[in-house]
Amino acid sequence: MTETMQDRRARLMGPNVPTFYREPLHLVRGEGVWLWDKSGKRYLDCYNNVPHVGHCHPHVVQAICAQAGQLNTHTRYLHDTVLEYIDRLGATFGHGTTQAIMTCTGSEANDIALRMAQAVTGKTGIIATDNTYHGNTALVSQLSTRKPPIGGYAKNVKLVPAPDSRVPVGGTVEGQAAAFAANVARAVQELEADGFGLSGMLICPLFANEGLPDLAPGFLDPTVAVIRAAGGLMIADEVQPGFGRSGSHFWGHDRLGFAPDVVTMGKPMGNGHPVAAVFATPRVMGAFRDAFGYFNTFGGNPVSAAAAMAVLDVIEREGLQDNARTTGAYMVDRLRAVQHPWIAQVRGAGQFYGVEFVTESGAPATAFVADVIEGMVANGVILNNIGKHRNTLKMRPPMPFGREHADIVVDTLVQVLAQTPVRG
Amino acid sequence: MTETMQDRRARLMGPNVPTFYREPLHLVRGEGVWLWDKSGKRYLDCYNNVPHVGHCHPHVVQAICAQAGQLNTHTRYLHDTVLEYIDRLGATFGHGTTQAIMTCTGSEANDIALRMAQAVTGKTGIIATDNTYHGNTALVSQLSTRKPPIGGYAKNVKLVPAPDSRVPVGGTVEGQAAAFAANVARAVQELEADGFGLSGMLICPLFANEGLPDLAPGFLDPTVAVIRAAGGLMIADEVQPGFGRSGSHFWGHDRLGFAPDVVTMGKPMGNGHPVAAVFATPRVMGAFRDAFGYFNTFGGNPVSAAAAMAVLDVIEREGLQDNARTTGAYMVDRLRAVQHPWIAQVRGAGQFYGVEFVTESGAPATAFVADVIEGMVANGVILNNIGKHRNTLKMRPPMPFGREHADIVVDTLVQVLAQTPVRG
Repeated sequence: MTETMQDRRARLMGPNVPTFYREPLHLVRGEGVWLWDKSGKRYLDCYNNVPHVGHCHPHVVQAICAQAGQLNTHTRYLHDTVLEYIDRLGATFGHGTTQAIMTCTGSEANDIALRMAQAVTGKTGIIATDNTYHGNTALVSQLSTRKPPIGGYAKNVKLVPAPDSRVPVGGTVEGQAAAFAANVARAVQELEADGFGLSGMLICPLFANEGLPDLAPGFLDPTVAVIRAAGGLMIADEVQPGFGRSGSHFWGHDRLGFAPDVVTMGKPMGNGHPVAAVFATPRVMGAFRDAFGYFNTFGGNPVSAAAAMAVLDVIEREGLQDNARTTGAYMVDRLRAVQHPWIAQVRGAGQFYGVEFVTESGAPATAFVADVIEGMVANGVILNNIGKHRNTLKMRPPMPFGREHADIVVDTLVQVLAQTPVRG
Repeated sequence: MTETMQDRRARLMGPNVPTFYREPLHLVRGEGVWLWDKSGKRYLDCYNNVPHVGHCHPHVVQAICAQAGQLNTHTRYLHDTVLEYIDRLGATFGHGTTQAIMTCTGSEANDIALRMAQAVTGKTGIIATDNTYHGNTALVSQLSTRKPPIGGYAKNVKLVPAPDSRVPVGGTVEGQAAAFAANVARAVQELEADGFGLSGMLICPLFANEGLPDLAPGFLDPTVAVIRAAGGLMIADEVQPGFGRSGSHFWGHDRLGFAPDVVTMGKPMGNGHPVAAVFATPRVMGAFRDAFGYFNTFGGNPVSAAAAMAVLDVIEREGLQDNARTTGAYMVDRLRAVQHPWIAQVRGAGQFYGVEFVTESGAPATAFVADVIEGMVANGVILNNIGKHRNTLKMRPPMPFGREHADIVVDTLVQVLAQTPVRG
């Protein structure tokens, strides 16, 4: 009896550790926007944002190798690269978030960000949306858990209804912005009534997990006004929007048009090397450093800093933000030309695409989308779903994804849609 | 006006970000047990446990480079190395902790471990010692903070007095073990009276931050009995003791002689690459997977798994655990021969050494130890202090540290002690 890989996985990792797709992929090699499985089958990666500048980009690999062979310590000693990196990345912010704590994961960054808001305000209430994900620490996972944690849901966390994925359903853009802000104002009042007070609001400026709604710049302005009036901080989780993915802007909060007090980032920052960060204004950083001790052994070590620096090099040298803008526009045009009775909306923000499907009756076409995903993977294109009802195809490729790859994805989608029986 | 490196650091990282030593070191290169600063001065590293198998070990660097150039994704796809690693490391445990979640930091591992205890027991009370450190997430930092967090100290955390660094001061070993257990029993009663109940106890089996007390095997037995009787879990934080450092055993809990339900590890695991893990019994892992969703993007990725695997290779091939045992015994013998009126005790556990200093009146010689540390660094030996009163020299070198290095450290210490004026 040979143990299957999935049985071995269950034996070693425990029960209920999900993989993607009905038949999990066993990948062995990556290069640029391409992945290969053990049998040699090639896949176009239209999903992974961690390999931001392309799988195994030689410039990043070289930077990691060179530094790993030279020195890898921690920030209790002085080292140039971490300072050069913070200086360089800090210069991309337009709203004063120039000081940083380097961490290893976006979860650690958000865990700090929430405490920064507490340190500044002296209060503990947190607001997020009701269909989001900001990480996996005990604190941060309270913003996305669907199961009550042991001891019950945190009473200082209020989740407001996410913007509807298809704006402006049932009203104007202005109306939806006001409605969102009104829910936030109600949450602030509840936090104050419950004695927690407001520390801040944490949002992804693309509302990516919420379904990538096509929000106009200024959508968040009434909400920001509510948060500021209550003395709270705005925290932008740039794990998904950041580093030029949206094409039009390097950061998602600039795209949406608001000035955060704290910016967190993670996945794409080191192209897969575990590096993340939280940037804040000096006022916020000072309050945090005063209220909390914090040291991260691996955070900002010379190798992590070198990897992150190399990612910035490639984004600039290869014009990847501009590619996201132009390829993004091309891909959206091509997706909008795809004919299928259940396509409700095509949305895009640079190299981030959503194609939402609803049935004739207007119900989310969740099962159909699941079948389409399987069909795409079978035909060599990796992607997934987003949104509350999981009825939106999620495409978020490595940034070197170009027109020739867009053509492959759309042509494959047309073929798979034609072959997939409609079922709600 | 040229900005100094320390000014730049304050500008970019914010205020109060400590460095080691009165004049911070600006390190640029590492190899084995040696570090070099920007001026070319060489230091014997008698402090850093992260570069476990030696700074920039070529086998680990090569493993990272090879895998970074091949594929670096996440565990939503199948990959061999992470499974082989868990299988291999799991075989080193004698008490059934065979299933693992891979993370990036020991903090993340402990954050999960505490939730595992909650999942198994349905309760939230946690016990640790009053002079410990287990990490930096919002949850885990509640075990070591000296400042009340915003919102106040967590009421479900009880800190018991750490074992005195000089056992058995004022009594027998058995007496101190019983006294420690009695304090734990009182904490359990308080947690139950307060309605939290006991989920578990988290300890470092070397009590390293507590001062590396010279505890006999079995010291913890009465405490474990108290925890078990209350239905709680024992969590061993092996971030410092693990991977053979103690010489006599691969894991600190085996040295102390108890069977944990959960084992966490971090710093030395990837020789500086950010990789960490929590191992648990299938019963505990099943309860956690059932109660909490958890996914870690970077955790267990192919590069992290390759780095961790390479560290195990080197530990085995170079006999580093055995070297820790023999070099450890040699170094302790040499340290015990050092003459100084304020040396109160020399303690050792493999490649982990403590030399405690007290004044003639028996007071902790904290300022004197600080001066000795500066003298050692000036003479090219890096080390630091531990314990509640910071009056114990802490030496915890990379594992290839051998007799010739021990000779350098002790000879330098003799010289520095002779030159350092005594002051309490």
